[in-house]
Amino acid sequence: MHDVKVEDLKDMARGAAVLGTGGGGDPYVGRLLAQEAIRRHGPVSLVEPTELPDDAVVIPTAFMGAPTVMLEKLPSGKELTAALRALEELIGRKATHTVSIEAGGLNSMIPIATAAELELPLVDADGMGRAFPELQMLLPTLGGIAATPMALADERGNSIGLRTVDNAWAERLARSATIEMGCSSAVSLYVLTGRQVKEFMVHGTITLCREIGAAIREAAERHADPVTAAAVALGGQQVFQGKLVDVRRGTSGGFARGTAVLEGLGADLGGRMDIDFQNENLVARRGDAVVASVPDLICVLDTDTGEPVTTETLRYGLRVSVVVAPCDPRWRSPEGLQLAGPAYFGYDHTYLPV
Amino acid sequence: MHDVKVEDLKDMARGAAVLGTGGGGDPYVGRLLAQEAIRRHGPVSLVEPTELPDDAVVIPTAFMGAPTVMLEKLPSGKELTAALRALEELIGRKATHTVSIEAGGLNSMIPIATAAELELPLVDADGMGRAFPELQMLLPTLGGIAATPMALADERGNSIGLRTVDNAWAERLARSATIEMGCSSAVSLYVLTGRQVKEFMVHGTITLCREIGAAIREAAERHADPVTAAAVALGGQQVFQGKLVDVRRGTSGGFARGTAVLEGLGADLGGRMDIDFQNENLVARRGDAVVASVPDLICVLDTDTGEPVTTETLRYGLRVSVVVAPCDPRWRSPEGLQLAGPAYFGYDHTYLPV
Repeated sequence: MHDVKVEDLKDMARGAAVLGTGGGGDPYVGRLLAQEAIRRHGPVSLVEPTELPDDAVVIPTAFMGAPTVMLEKLPSGKELTAALRALEELIGRKATHTVSIEAGGLNSMIPIATAAELELPLVDADGMGRAFPELQMLLPTLGGIAATPMALADERGNSIGLRTVDNAWAERLARSATIEMGCSSAVSLYVLTGRQVKEFMVHGTITLCREIGAAIREAAERHADPVTAAAVALGGQQVFQGKLVDVRRGTSGGFARGTAVLEGLGADLGGRMDIDFQNENLVARRGDAVVASVPDLICVLDTDTGEPVTTETLRYGLRVSVVVAPCDPRWRSPEGLQLAGPAYFGYDHTYLPV
Repeated sequence: MHDVKVEDLKDMARGAAVLGTGGGGDPYVGRLLAQEAIRRHGPVSLVEPTELPDDAVVIPTAFMGAPTVMLEKLPSGKELTAALRALEELIGRKATHTVSIEAGGLNSMIPIATAAELELPLVDADGMGRAFPELQMLLPTLGGIAATPMALADERGNSIGLRTVDNAWAERLARSATIEMGCSSAVSLYVLTGRQVKEFMVHGTITLCREIGAAIREAAERHADPVTAAAVALGGQQVFQGKLVDVRRGTSGGFARGTAVLEGLGADLGGRMDIDFQNENLVARRGDAVVASVPDLICVLDTDTGEPVTTETLRYGLRVSVVVAPCDPRWRSPEGLQLAGPAYFGYDHTYLPV
């Protein structure tokens, strides 16, 4: 057991943005919230999943919505504790721990803010090992764990409780409520026992965020290649280096959707690459050939600094590298692919692991 | 105190459709639900508001959504008890009585079904004295009573609890959830004490529904004019007689919206009349002159039978009469007009009481 302190947050946020695969919201917003909460309440205890009592009541919090909107409508943090408290009321129990449902992006940092604010220990784990755009796309869903009872809260003081027949309905109803709340909301869902965290979550991902973030920073400091450092820390490989020449985007159904077009500079890392995204990067293609696709990780990094580039900050002329990395092996099962594989997102290619 | 029996329901439904001013959903659907529930559980006790203990826990139920959809997606009744039970859980108290929030249309009959199903007494009152399209348009809103905590349920088994900062937010969030649930949902909201029912509800409207319905039936039976009988029972007056020559309609934002164009036959009841509706009839006009408008009642009746015509059954060639009647006087206060007067619905004419 160790603590999360303010000085850890920069590396963590950088690593979280890498695992965010372009989406999950800019961790910068989450870092500010976490920083403020730690300054007020002190460091957050980080607990290994294996240390959890089997009957621990582990309640996650997260932000839901379009990342493009969250950059403009900064959350206050109050809506997070309101969502968690509303869920506690729904289930009639108090949280003993909190955890991240999504190690990638904003939602890796959010539970740090919640943990500090409510003085709860944070479990070093998450439900995806990356970021995904829809709330049923969690490994616990594969374990038959219900997303609901679930609570949503907004910055005005409105809150919503949901009990749904399945996790897809939780996504539908929470998404429409989030859109009505102004395209972002604080959510609390997937109440887990300690035992379920051990069995169904990805272990160690908060620490992994810090390690990836630190590897990139240290490489840049010693003038080594930060993209290579990121690839090594991720257990992945670089597949592209070049320039962003076009980005088409829109916000529809509460999601940021679009395609980034990259023009390669080098030889084996060159050519043209198209990356489709729905909040997160979904598929990277060279012409008709799929280079990588969900559920594997497709990370766009600034070539010079190694800083991860989120889909909402993609812009013409950016010099970027693409690193792909394997997802948690459970995503590669038939059930995992059904939940978050290419077909779910409307693609007809067969998933080939990177 | 008297009972609501199966043989009362036809008259009640007819009268409810008159108070529905074209909207509120076809009471036929509500009548079937009430009939089934009474057959299974026995008659429903109807209680005068003045008989209520001040601390009674009075919990209404209703259907929310576009009436056009409710005709196609018949409710089972289970979603109503699910909504009420979900609300009881939210507030941590049990209902001692139930009541209608809306005497007009479907929602006059719905609480009869709920009362029978849960063996609760029904209060002879409602929150509007008519039907209105949005859930904050209740006299209790004028009394500062919150619509939330509120629960919604659908026929699949999904349920939603809401706590909102005001009743307009309750409407927004419940409306978007209702749309997502397939454009209709069962709702339970506006938990009232017995004292609040006495002070803020319209008394006697369930009995009034039966009286209006019986007056029309009896007039038709003795070959008298059923439209005149309806006008007398309503305390209103006939302003038009003619034929429906056009109806423009659409479903948008979860509402049935449109305009009915009537061509007059007689002299003083003739000319052309346009009636705009949003679920309910909002404004009746002769050219630029407003004949009647919300919050007053604009009721379209079949000229031959006196049967009320709902906006979703308006069709070319129908021979209709229009009766207008005064709303509850509290709707005519500045606050009442702000909540449900012409300006709220986007009209710029000054409200003139009929």
